[in-house]
Amino acid sequence: MPTPAPKDPDYAERIRASFDKQGLMATLGASLVRIAPGAVEIALTPTPAVSQQHGFVHAGAVSAIADSAAGYSALTLMPQGAGVLTVEFKINLLAPAAGDLILARGRVIKAGRTLTLAQAEVFAEADGKARLVSVLSATLMTIEGRDGVAD
Amino acid sequence: MPTPAPKDPDYAERIRASFDKQGLMATLGASLVRIAPGAVEIALTPTPAVSQQHGFVHAGAVSAIADSAAGYSALTLMPQGAGVLTVEFKINLLAPAAGDLILARGRVIKAGRTLTLAQAEVFAEADGKARLVSVLSATLMTIEGRDGVAD
Amino acid sequence: MPTPAPKDPDYAERIRASFDKQGLMATLGASLVRIAPGAVEIALTPTPAVSQQHGFVHAGAVSAIADSAAGYSALTLMPQGAGVLTVEFKINLLAPAAGDLILARGRVIKAGRTLTLAQAEVFAEADGKARLVSVLSATLMTIEGRDGVAD
Amino acid sequence: MPTPAPKDPDYAERIRASFDKQGLMATLGASLVRIAPGAVEIALTPTPAVSQQHGFVHAGAVSAIADSAAGYSALTLMPQGAGVLTVEFKINLLAPAAGDLILARGRVIKAGRTLTLAQAEVFAEADGKARLVSVLSATLMTIEGRDGVAD
Repeated sequence: MPTPAPKDPDYAERIRASFDKQGLMATLGASLVRIAPGAVEIALTPTPAVSQQHGFVHAGAVSAIADSAAGYSALTLMPQGAGVLTVEFKINLLAPAAGDLILARGRVIKAGRTLTLAQAEVFAEADGKARLVSVLSATLMTIEGRDGVAD
Repeated sequence: MPTPAPKDPDYAERIRASFDKQGLMATLGASLVRIAPGAVEIALTPTPAVSQQHGFVHAGAVSAIADSAAGYSALTLMPQGAGVLTVEFKINLLAPAAGDLILARGRVIKAGRTLTLAQAEVFAEADGKARLVSVLSATLMTIEGRDGVAD
Repeated sequence: MPTPAPKDPDYAERIRASFDKQGLMATLGASLVRIAPGAVEIALTPTPAVSQQHGFVHAGAVSAIADSAAGYSALTLMPQGAGVLTVEFKINLLAPAAGDLILARGRVIKAGRTLTLAQAEVFAEADGKARLVSVLSATLMTIEGRDGVAD
Repeated sequence: MPTPAPKDPDYAERIRASFDKQGLMATLGASLVRIAPGAVEIALTPTPAVSQQHGFVHAGAVSAIADSAAGYSALTLMPQGAGVLTVEFKINLLAPAAGDLILARGRVIKAGRTLTLAQAEVFAEADGKARLVSVLSATLMTIEGRDGVAD
């Protein structure tokens, strides 16, 4: 499906501002690396601070950047003043997340008025190669008129 | 289904040692509050460091403690020397995670030789009341004989 | 969470009428065996007509009765005139579905104004014993004011 | 990721034979329309026999063909004598499944020794156009040496 045009011309600035309010992204050391209509990418550098017990990046940290990438890709297409909340997501972990950089690439599959389906693919980059390590699908909800939930 | 007896009598000590190696749990400020056969609980105090953009606990942080609680509940029933990896999980987010404490209660639904299904319920405690905010189901894999993957 | 009271006093009759319109349930030979506030059960007799290639009941048939049980458990709590649609579900298949009877037990976890989370556990009954073979979680949507989507 | 070559040169014939043993596919009126390495497509004609209560194709029937398409796409890459079982799947239902034909396109995302991740996209064709109505992701297990579970 072709991606519809953003309803809010300032969508990129809006997502940067919202991302900067996500304390968890700063805590994990994650950064916003791309914003386009229906597509957002977030990167994370593997460090012991985000590891699980075998030294790989924790599934929770992988999920956090993949969920944010999917959610913000949905937000690029939402009207001004609306907020985005995750209803649910599923993540499959295909290979240990390890390497120089973990990159989550979110994109909208279908944007509806109330619900949006987005996916994120997570790649681990090492030695100049990118390996798919995780795939997430998420249902996002457009929230309008609820105090405190605007992006 | 009745929970089978742990194969490893030192399961609780083993889970404490593995949890202490999860850098992400320390980074999030999460703590292990209960270990029993087939059941593990992990708590997290909401702070700006684990928040999303509206001030609630980020779905990624909720997922991280719920995934660890489910994974460690599976590990309580695994043989000595085996490691645990998450194959996939799905999480439904029912209400904003906010309050004094976030508690993830993991438990095994079915322990198989290779794969285990576990669930976690996540509660937000505020004003002396606990509210269900999230439900996770996860497939965990028992890993044997792979270097670096033992718990 | 306690189950809220049904908003529609005729919820049971309404679910029977809706179930009778599901051509697939008749095709599979499934029957409605229990309707209570927030809980609906559907049974299926294993036959070659609903099998997969090894002779077990097909995951699609298991999913069909589990999805309907979850969806109708949600519908018991919806207002008159509203329709129910499945937004998404995830099912874990723990053991082959085989035996004398397959029973899907749906129940509401949280009923919201727009979205409801419901789960279904599926049991295979054989030799007087019931074995858990599958667990489903589903997000259901309350549809109001859309032509042709009322239950 | 590039799709690896099939280990079994007779994979197409093997899938046709296995599909023909799925009683549910015949009951639903589904047919196998494409078999390629890592990719299988299954079609279904909407009729009242596979409907839910509003006249759309039932989510269970959509799931059945999507699960079979994903599972058989995984089987194309499995060794001779191995059987395939679904461990879990999640399906998002984006739009009502209605039209002249429902087509499920399965493809392998990553084939592992024990576990394979596959996805299926389901399209509804009407008036010469195809509309994406559903997206499924599934974990499939390669079963070797278990009586009665070979494909």
